[in-house]
Amino acid sequence: MTRILPLEPLTREAFAPFGEVIEAAGITPIPINYGATSRYHDLANIDCAAQGGSAIVSLFRSTPPAYPFTLKVMENHPLGTQAFMPLSGRPWLVVVAPPGWFDAGKVRAFRARGDQGVNFARGTWHHFNLTLGAASDFLVIDRSGPASEKPDDNCTEVSLEEFGLAVEAPHGA
Amino acid sequence: MTRILPLEPLTREAFAPFGEVIEAAGITPIPINYGATSRYHDLANIDCAAQGGSAIVSLFRSTPPAYPFTLKVMENHPLGTQAFMPLSGRPWLVVVAPPGWFDAGKVRAFRARGDQGVNFARGTWHHFNLTLGAASDFLVIDRSGPASEKPDDNCTEVSLEEFGLAVEAPHGA
Repeated sequence: MTRILPLEPLTREAFAPFGEVIEAAGITPIPINYGATSRYHDLANIDCAAQGGSAIVSLFRSTPPAYPFTLKVMENHPLGTQAFMPLSGRPWLVVVAPPGWFDAGKVRAFRARGDQGVNFARGTWHHFNLTLGAASDFLVIDRSGPASEKPDDNCTEVSLEEFGLAVEAPHGA
Repeated sequence: MTRILPLEPLTREAFAPFGEVIEAAGITPIPINYGATSRYHDLANIDCAAQGGSAIVSLFRSTPPAYPFTLKVMENHPLGTQAFMPLSGRPWLVVVAPPGWFDAGKVRAFRARGDQGVNFARGTWHHFNLTLGAASDFLVIDRSGPASEKPDDNCTEVSLEEFGLAVEAPHGA
């Protein structure tokens, strides 16, 4: 049996248990550049320095799955935050569960606008990028550890096959 | 007398003295997310940890000036890199000069595509955001220092009024 997760609007308040929403809306900007630029300052708690790590910048190009999509796996980075900012302007889906022991009953799905990014807090369970409509690029800020570190040290996965959780593309996307 | 700077195409090679170009083109990606995502890995040398600083994420919303635009000031962040990634998909202009003593004869202007970001190396002289066509948003990754630090410690400006350097919007933008 499959359960379709309801899509919640992505807001700072609703997403707070999982990290930060990166968006200008609701922030009072600082005027800089002699008035040419509004700076919406310091919107994400980048936290990538644990165990000799540092923040790196990459681009992700993600292809949308066929919807409805049954969730297969979620991942968790205990040593660093991971921020995603869409570059395509297209809406996308963010599926998360609280840090700690994985609880399939606490998985939540958010519908993000195309001008909303997120920063997953350390340890937040999250599904990989779920794009809508077309292959879409994201700027990603995450952690790179020392060469001696094993990849598994900062990436845990949990299988969702047994839970039958699915997401559906929103109407019009 | 005004001199219009020629607009050079933004390429990794041409921009190397000033920092990195953040773009997928020319990079072999790493397949992740069970094939759904291509990861273009670690494209910028984020360097914001000097003197107790760290990398922060902000949004900049910049209004284009009237073109031709006479350059008035350039700035320099000696303690940290500053990365700009366009979110609008619109092309933009990047005006830089080499680190060290400012030399107006070495100012260069690049035309960036809408899918190209840049990361200014520590000490690279750069003009503030020069957008084209409409107000445009950028994701910015730069340095925040300890509370005891003065803003001037990481931002030097030089006046360009006397040099009469200008940039023109490219045809079609």
